[in-house]
Amino acid sequence: MASAIADGDARLDGKSTKEKAKLRAAYAAVDAHVKDGQVLGIGSGSTVVYAVDRLAERVKTEGLNVKCIPTSFQAIQLINENDLTMTDLSRNPKIDVAIDGVDEISDELDCIKGGGGCHVQEKIVAACAASFITIADFQKQATNLGTVWLKGVPIEVVPLAQVPVTLKLEAAGGKVTLRMAKAKAGPVVSDNGNFILDAHFGELDATRTPAMLEKEILSITGVVDCGLFVGMINEAYIGAEDGGVIVLSKY
Amino acid sequence: MASAIADGDARLDGKSTKEKAKLRAAYAAVDAHVKDGQVLGIGSGSTVVYAVDRLAERVKTEGLNVKCIPTSFQAIQLINENDLTMTDLSRNPKIDVAIDGVDEISDELDCIKGGGGCHVQEKIVAACAASFITIADFQKQATNLGTVWLKGVPIEVVPLAQVPVTLKLEAAGGKVTLRMAKAKAGPVVSDNGNFILDAHFGELDATRTPAMLEKEILSITGVVDCGLFVGMINEAYIGAEDGGVIVLSKY
Amino acid sequence: MASAIADGDARLDGKSTKEKAKLRAAYAAVDAHVKDGQVLGIGSGSTVVYAVDRLAERVKTEGLNVKCIPTSFQAIQLINENDLTMTDLSRNPKIDVAIDGVDEISDELDCIKGGGGCHVQEKIVAACAASFITIADFQKQATNLGTVWLKGVPIEVVPLAQVPVTLKLEAAGGKVTLRMAKAKAGPVVSDNGNFILDAHFGELDATRTPAMLEKEILSITGVVDCGLFVGMINEAYIGAEDGGVIVLSKY
Amino acid sequence: MASAIADGDARLDGKSTKEKAKLRAAYAAVDAHVKDGQVLGIGSGSTVVYAVDRLAERVKTEGLNVKCIPTSFQAIQLINENDLTMTDLSRNPKIDVAIDGVDEISDELDCIKGGGGCHVQEKIVAACAASFITIADFQKQATNLGTVWLKGVPIEVVPLAQVPVTLKLEAAGGKVTLRMAKAKAGPVVSDNGNFILDAHFGELDATRTPAMLEKEILSITGVVDCGLFVGMINEAYIGAEDGGVIVLSKY
Repeated sequence: MASAIADGDARLDGKSTKEKAKLRAAYAAVDAHVKDGQVLGIGSGSTVVYAVDRLAERVKTEGLNVKCIPTSFQAIQLINENDLTMTDLSRNPKIDVAIDGVDEISDELDCIKGGGGCHVQEKIVAACAASFITIADFQKQATNLGTVWLKGVPIEVVPLAQVPVTLKLEAAGGKVTLRMAKAKAGPVVSDNGNFILDAHFGELDATRTPAMLEKEILSITGVVDCGLFVGMINEAYIGAEDGGVIVLSKY
Repeated sequence: MASAIADGDARLDGKSTKEKAKLRAAYAAVDAHVKDGQVLGIGSGSTVVYAVDRLAERVKTEGLNVKCIPTSFQAIQLINENDLTMTDLSRNPKIDVAIDGVDEISDELDCIKGGGGCHVQEKIVAACAASFITIADFQKQATNLGTVWLKGVPIEVVPLAQVPVTLKLEAAGGKVTLRMAKAKAGPVVSDNGNFILDAHFGELDATRTPAMLEKEILSITGVVDCGLFVGMINEAYIGAEDGGVIVLSKY
Repeated sequence: MASAIADGDARLDGKSTKEKAKLRAAYAAVDAHVKDGQVLGIGSGSTVVYAVDRLAERVKTEGLNVKCIPTSFQAIQLINENDLTMTDLSRNPKIDVAIDGVDEISDELDCIKGGGGCHVQEKIVAACAASFITIADFQKQATNLGTVWLKGVPIEVVPLAQVPVTLKLEAAGGKVTLRMAKAKAGPVVSDNGNFILDAHFGELDATRTPAMLEKEILSITGVVDCGLFVGMINEAYIGAEDGGVIVLSKY
Repeated sequence: MASAIADGDARLDGKSTKEKAKLRAAYAAVDAHVKDGQVLGIGSGSTVVYAVDRLAERVKTEGLNVKCIPTSFQAIQLINENDLTMTDLSRNPKIDVAIDGVDEISDELDCIKGGGGCHVQEKIVAACAASFITIADFQKQATNLGTVWLKGVPIEVVPLAQVPVTLKLEAAGGKVTLRMAKAKAGPVVSDNGNFILDAHFGELDATRTPAMLEKEILSITGVVDCGLFVGMINEAYIGAEDGGVIVLSKY
């Protein structure tokens, strides 16, 4: 699929190849999926910024009437700064399209999310969406998960369960760290008031698929949810190095 | 098994048949399972009060050296009021024996917990215990779950997911209510900062076993955990109407 | 001031004298203060239900364009059920009119709030409002605070500070209880994740004015805020026993 | 006062002048204030690590029997790693000595804390201590607060009040930023589930003293507490550049 953004477009000025790829993927996804009257899920991360830019542009020029459900404080800010209409899952529990970034995406269209610690809310929103669309640059692509994003699968845990869950993840072969904050002392506290463990299990191939690992992780009592999104993505927009946008689908 | 508390014991004075049954079950469980040097999980509820009474008695008279991990604010208070030694899952992630009450227990030794809204912490503690022992009076017993405790399975959810999780539980056949607080306006907020849904699915028989239902509930994104404890109980002490204590085991 | 609701109005049918008084106070306040284009604070409690009823009526019949900021989960539900437009303090930090109930109101127009445990959010919203209007029935009125509402001043505390703050309140002469939940085990957890102490200090007269007590309470480290609202009310609408509505002002 | 750590002591090996100063201040404070049988408050930060090292040393060599109350997750870890006895403010609401670091300390022995975002818990613990002792290196000293620590006074706010509190702090002359997380997307969430604003008001001299500013900040509804500690320090141990330790007292 050709990108909507031609070479030489002013919006690409001064951007690195990677940033251009992110912008093009985001614009292409918004152009292909957002329609008038929809309820949208707005993800988090640096690629989503471009998606909201394009969404705001289309709302203005086309007079689209859409409602946005945020997945994070950053998403709330993006929605407000761009004067988009906010709603929530209580008023709109059924989402037409959710658009979000990834930390790593496999050829099978499974992905790891949660580098930003918002994967629980992002997964809740994605699970309410008729279409879950991800956007990413070429550096996020992997044949198998666990080969590009090496920090591990983000796992949100109830604070009192941190040590026993860590031991159980280690017993399952994970290399586990409690995510420590940098702008405060002690561990990161998630927007839900929990702690985040990052558990790396190496390459997830046929021996241990993402589906198998997700099931193992979620079976540990004290885990709220994890950043493995298995079988949830409907379309992935990946900005290529050459300026094109690759679209992968799975319905 | 005969109760350690003989008829006429002063500790039974003025108590109803039901309260006597709770006391006898609790005393029998503590007598059978607690040993010097152990790390103990202390559950919540009115039956657990008797267990802590007996534990404190044994610590005093036998000089037992045990450490207690609480599952709730009530348990913290019980441990402190009885001058027992407190610890937590960070210092002691492996528990020897956890003792807790139930809201309903089946012949298969599965149970429903969470009437007090502490089932997430209780399940975390139970999952760390080498032996998980429950104590109850005869009114909690059922052939199948869902026939005595009719308020539904307590399900802790991330607040923003309350409506979509409710819709998904209803689609699965549950009769769902958001648990409302009585001592404050609005919904109950759990000790973990979440909301609690009570979802009744009728009798859990071979058509839909507790294991099947637990799996269905936990597969809904936004659910933290639920009050179905399947295959976790090792021994159940049930105070009978006639003053005896029935012990059921499953290892 | 005469009530807008004439005797015989169908909306009064089947209501007790007290409920009629609440309805009339709420309707009168909404009629006097709400204007097109305003940002409104929506309080909590049973009297506020009538205010939102009237607001929804006026929005429909007069085509008012107003935005509502909730102070509690109950207020969120009322706003949504009545199809009113929701906003928040991030988008609209300046409120035109906030309307809320009280647990007790003095002749000086000071009040105690927090029976529903939402006083921190209610006070934040009231403090952002150009006009803070309260609505109540005749049973909430007192010459001095502390004479009608006898449960004590609700005080939200950071959980770890519960015991030391209790001791300090007792040293200051308060009769203090930790508010226990009824629909869960243990203490009430507020919507902000804190505990609530109820501290009764007797009648607040010239010896110890509401302003003096509020200052004493807020000076205790660990207190988030308390339910004493001193000098914040601009107008109070009080439904009288005889069907009239008394309006008290202070600007 | 001479430091207990002589030049050439192995514990100073490989340390910078600043680290040596921190170690010497911490050791001197623990040596001067900790006695057998005490309840101790354990603060947070890099200087406190040395204090806990010394405390553990003295517990081992002198057989001291002390109980420690943590002010943060970091303090919990320090207490556990050093096998010290943990307690809390519910069991021990009266502390003999609390030892903590500072971000800036004035000649008047007022200080700013909260760079690590734990100032609310630290202030609660300090307020329960008969003696509040701070430890710091020479770089934390200032004639007036606001001249060395330029990031501003840390202020914990209830999340929904973030924007209005920011506006009110700005109206009072503060340069305010919402503290953003680095290891997660969006703002830092404190251990109490709140947001942190950093508000710089320039040098706090006679025109606006720390006491005046603290009062102004705490009067804003939505503020939980701030990192200005006024009149709380009893003794400050400051490691000097030359290897000495300066002790300043105020009782």
